Amino acid sequence: MEELISNTPEPPYYAVIFTSIKSDNDSGYSDMAMKMLELAKNQDGFLGYESASEDIGITVSYWTDLHSISKWKNDQSHLVAQKLGRDKWYSSFKVRISKVERDYSL
Amino acid sequence: MEELISNTPEPPYYAVIFTSIKSDNDSGYSDMAMKMLELAKNQDGFLGYESASEDIGITVSYWTDLHSISKWKNDQSHLVAQKLGRDKWYSSFKVRISKVERDYSL
Repeated sequence: MEELISNTPEPPYYAVIFTSIKSDNDSGYSDMAMKMLELAKNQDGFLGYESASEDIGITVSYWTDLHSISKWKNDQSHLVAQKLGRDKWYSSFKVRISKVERDYSL
Repeated sequence: MEELISNTPEPPYYAVIFTSIKSDNDSGYSDMAMKMLELAKNQDGFLGYESASEDIGITVSYWTDLHSISKWKNDQSHLVAQKLGRDKWYSSFKVRISKVERDYSL
Protein backbone atom coordinates (compact mmCIF):
# COMPACT_ATOMS: atom_id res chain seq x y z
CA MET A 1 0.00 0.00 0.00
CA GLU A 2 1.16 3.49 -0.69
CA GLU A 3 1.71 5.61 2.38
CA LEU A 4 -1.26 7.84 3.16
CA ILE A 5 1.02 10.25 4.97
CA SER A 6 3.84 11.09 2.59
CA ASN A 7 7.26 9.90 3.60
CA THR A 8 8.99 13.17 2.76
CA PRO A 9 12.73 13.74 3.28
CA GLU A 10 14.33 16.07 5.82
CA PRO A 11 13.31 19.70 5.28
CA PRO A 12 13.68 21.98 3.50
CA TYR A 13 11.35 20.99 0.68
CA TYR A 14 8.20 22.54 -0.78
CA ALA A 15 4.48 22.00 -0.19
CA VAL A 16 1.75 23.10 -2.60
CA ILE A 17 -1.46 23.46 -0.60
CA PHE A 18 -4.48 23.30 -2.90
CA THR A 19 -7.79 24.04 -1.18
CA SER A 20 -10.93 23.86 -3.28
CA ILE A 21 -14.70 23.99 -3.32
CA LYS A 22 -16.30 21.97 -6.09
CA SER A 23 -19.05 23.18 -8.37
CA ASP A 24 -22.12 21.05 -9.10
CA ASN A 25 -20.57 19.79 -12.31
CA ASP A 26 -18.60 16.67 -11.47
CA SER A 27 -18.53 15.20 -14.97
CA GLY A 28 -15.11 13.83 -15.87
CA TYR A 29 -13.53 15.08 -12.66
CA SER A 30 -12.44 11.87 -10.96
CA ASP A 31 -10.92 10.37 -14.12
CA MET A 32 -8.93 13.55 -14.65
CA ALA A 33 -7.86 13.72 -11.00
CA MET A 34 -6.54 10.18 -11.19
CA LYS A 35 -4.76 10.87 -14.47
CA MET A 36 -3.15 14.03 -13.07
CA LEU A 37 -1.98 12.21 -9.95
CA GLU A 38 -0.30 9.54 -12.06
CA LEU A 39 1.36 12.22 -14.20
CA ALA A 40 2.46 14.24 -11.16
CA LYS A 41 4.10 11.18 -9.61
CA ASN A 42 6.34 10.92 -12.64
CA GLN A 43 7.51 14.52 -12.56
CA ASP A 44 11.03 15.43 -11.54
CA GLY A 45 11.09 16.64 -7.97
CA PHE A 46 7.78 15.07 -6.90
CA LEU A 47 8.03 13.84 -3.29
CA GLY A 48 4.51 12.90 -2.28
CA TYR A 49 0.83 13.68 -2.12
CA GLU A 50 -1.87 13.82 0.55
CA SER A 51 -5.55 14.45 -0.07
CA ALA A 52 -8.87 14.58 1.79
CA SER A 53 -12.24 15.95 0.81
CA GLU A 54 -15.34 16.96 2.79
CA ASP A 55 -17.02 20.37 2.50
CA ILE A 56 -13.75 21.48 1.02
CA GLY A 57 -11.03 19.48 -0.66
CA ILE A 58 -7.46 19.80 0.53
CA THR A 59 -4.65 18.35 -1.53
CA VAL A 60 -1.05 18.88 -0.52
CA SER A 61 1.71 17.86 -2.90
CA TYR A 62 5.37 17.89 -1.92
CA TRP A 63 8.27 18.86 -4.14
CA THR A 64 12.02 19.20 -3.91
CA ASP A 65 12.15 22.75 -5.30
CA LEU A 66 10.27 25.64 -6.91
CA HIS A 67 11.50 24.83 -10.39
CA SER A 68 9.83 21.39 -10.30
CA ILE A 69 6.57 22.98 -9.13
CA SER A 70 6.71 25.51 -11.94
CA LYS A 71 7.47 22.81 -14.54
CA TRP A 72 4.48 20.76 -13.38
CA LYS A 73 2.23 23.83 -13.42
CA ASN A 74 3.17 24.36 -17.07
CA ASP A 75 2.94 20.74 -18.20
CA GLN A 76 0.69 20.59 -21.29
CA SER A 77 -1.74 17.94 -19.99
CA HIS A 78 -1.85 19.68 -16.64
CA LEU A 79 -2.68 23.03 -18.29
CA VAL A 80 -5.68 21.39 -19.97
CA ALA A 81 -6.80 19.97 -16.60
CA GLN A 82 -6.32 23.35 -14.91
CA LYS A 83 -8.48 25.07 -17.49
CA LEU A 84 -11.27 22.50 -17.03
CA GLY A 85 -10.92 22.94 -13.28
CA ARG A 86 -11.34 26.72 -13.50
CA ASP A 87 -14.16 26.59 -16.07
CA LYS A 88 -16.11 23.61 -14.81
CA TRP A 89 -15.18 21.66 -11.67
CA TYR A 90 -14.33 24.28 -9.06
CA SER A 91 -16.44 27.14 -7.80
CA SER A 92 -13.39 28.43 -5.96
CA PHE A 93 -9.90 27.40 -4.98
CA LYS A 94 -6.72 28.70 -3.49
CA VAL A 95 -3.18 27.53 -4.18
CA ARG A 96 -0.44 28.27 -1.68
CA ILE A 97 3.19 27.54 -2.39
CA SER A 98 5.16 27.10 0.78
CA LYS A 99 8.58 26.03 1.95
CA VAL A 100 8.56 23.38 4.66
CA GLU A 101 11.10 24.43 7.25
CA ARG A 102 10.49 21.85 9.99
CA ASP A 103 8.50 18.69 10.51
CA TYR A 104 7.88 16.07 13.17
CA SER A 105 5.67 13.05 13.42
CA LEU A 106 4.15 10.30 15.53
CA MET B 1 -20.95 31.76 7.34
CA GLU B 2 -17.26 31.50 8.00
CA GLU B 3 -15.14 31.14 4.91
CA LEU B 4 -14.26 27.52 4.16
CA ILE B 5 -11.18 28.66 2.29
CA SER B 6 -9.25 30.96 4.61
CA ASN B 7 -9.02 34.56 3.57
CA THR B 8 -5.33 34.87 4.34
CA PRO B 9 -3.33 38.08 3.77
CA GLU B 10 -0.62 38.61 1.17
CA PRO B 11 2.33 36.24 1.68
CA PRO B 12 4.61 35.72 3.45
CA TYR B 13 2.82 33.98 6.30
CA TYR B 14 3.04 30.51 7.79
CA ALA B 15 1.07 27.29 7.27
CA VAL B 16 1.06 24.38 9.71
CA ILE B 17 0.09 21.27 7.76
CA PHE B 18 -1.19 18.57 10.10
CA THR B 19 -1.84 15.21 8.43
CA SER B 20 -3.21 12.42 10.59
CA ILE B 21 -4.58 8.90 10.68
CA LYS B 22 -7.01 8.26 13.50
CA SER B 23 -6.94 5.27 15.81
CA ASP B 24 -10.11 3.29 16.58
CA ASN B 25 -10.60 5.24 19.80
CA ASP B 26 -12.70 8.26 18.97
CA SER B 27 -13.98 8.95 22.48
CA GLY B 28 -13.86 12.64 23.32
CA TYR B 29 -12.16 13.58 20.08
CA SER B 30 -14.71 15.80 18.40
CA ASP B 31 -15.44 17.84 21.55
CA MET B 32 -11.74 18.42 22.02
CA ALA B 33 -11.21 19.29 18.34
CA MET B 34 -13.95 21.92 18.55
CA LYS B 35 -12.56 23.32 21.79
CA MET B 36 -9.04 23.54 20.34
CA LEU B 37 -10.31 25.29 17.23
CA GLU B 38 -12.07 27.92 19.35
CA LEU B 39 -8.92 28.40 21.41
CA ALA B 40 -6.68 28.59 18.35
CA LYS B 41 -8.87 31.28 16.80
CA ASN B 42 -8.19 33.48 19.80
CA GLN B 43 -4.42 33.15 19.66
CA ASP B 44 -2.21 36.02 18.58
CA GLY B 45 -1.13 35.54 15.01
CA PHE B 46 -3.88 33.11 13.99
CA LEU B 47 -4.99 33.79 10.40
CA GLY B 48 -7.26 30.91 9.46
CA TYR B 49 -7.97 27.22 9.35
CA GLU B 50 -8.95 24.66 6.72
CA SER B 51 -9.80 21.03 7.39
CA ALA B 52 -11.02 17.91 5.58
CA SER B 53 -11.06 14.28 6.60
CA GLU B 54 -11.40 11.02 4.65
CA ASP B 55 -8.90 8.13 4.93
CA ILE B 56 -6.58 10.72 6.34
CA GLY B 57 -7.32 14.02 8.00
CA ILE B 58 -5.64 17.18 6.76
CA THR B 59 -5.83 20.34 8.80
CA VAL B 60 -3.96 23.43 7.73
CA SER B 61 -3.77 26.40 10.07
CA TYR B 62 -2.33 29.74 9.02
CA TRP B 63 -0.26 32.06 11.21
CA THR B 64 1.52 35.37 10.90
CA ASP B 65 4.86 34.12 12.25
CA LEU B 66 6.80 31.26 13.85
CA HIS B 67 6.60 32.76 17.32
CA SER B 68 2.78 32.56 17.30
CA ILE B 69 2.95 28.93 16.17
CA SER B 70 5.38 28.10 18.95
CA LYS B 71 3.24 29.87 21.56
CA TRP B 72 0.16 27.93 20.47
CA LYS B 73 2.09 24.64 20.52
CA ASN B 74 3.01 25.34 24.14
CA ASP B 75 -0.40 26.55 25.31
CA GLN B 76 -1.36 24.58 28.45
CA SER B 77 -4.77 23.37 27.20
CA HIS B 78 -3.28 22.55 23.83
CA LEU B 79 -0.50 20.49 25.46
CA VAL B 80 -3.16 18.39 27.20
CA ALA B 81 -4.95 17.88 23.87
CA GLN B 82 -1.68 16.99 22.13
CA LYS B 83 -0.90 14.33 24.74
CA LEU B 84 -4.38 12.79 24.34
CA GLY B 85 -3.88 12.90 20.59
CA ARG B 86 -0.59 11.03 20.77
CA ASP B 87 -1.76 8.51 23.38
CA LYS B 88 -5.29 7.88 22.17
CA TRP B 89 -6.77 9.46 19.05
CA TYR B 90 -4.08 9.19 16.39
CA SER B 91 -2.30 6.11 15.15
CA SER B 92 0.07 8.39 13.24
CA PHE B 93 0.47 12.00 12.24
CA LYS B 94 2.89 14.41 10.67
CA VAL B 95 3.21 18.12 11.32
CA ARG B 96 4.93 20.32 8.77
CA ILE B 97 5.69 23.96 9.44
CA SER B 98 6.02 25.90 6.24
CA LYS B 99 6.36 29.46 5.02
CA VAL B 100 3.86 30.45 2.34
CA GLU B 101 5.79 32.34 -0.31
CA ARG B 102 3.12 32.76 -3.01
CA ASP B 103 -0.57 32.17 -3.46
CA TYR B 104 -3.25 32.60 -6.08
CA SER B 105 -6.90 31.77 -6.27
CA LEU B 106 -10.06 31.42 -8.32
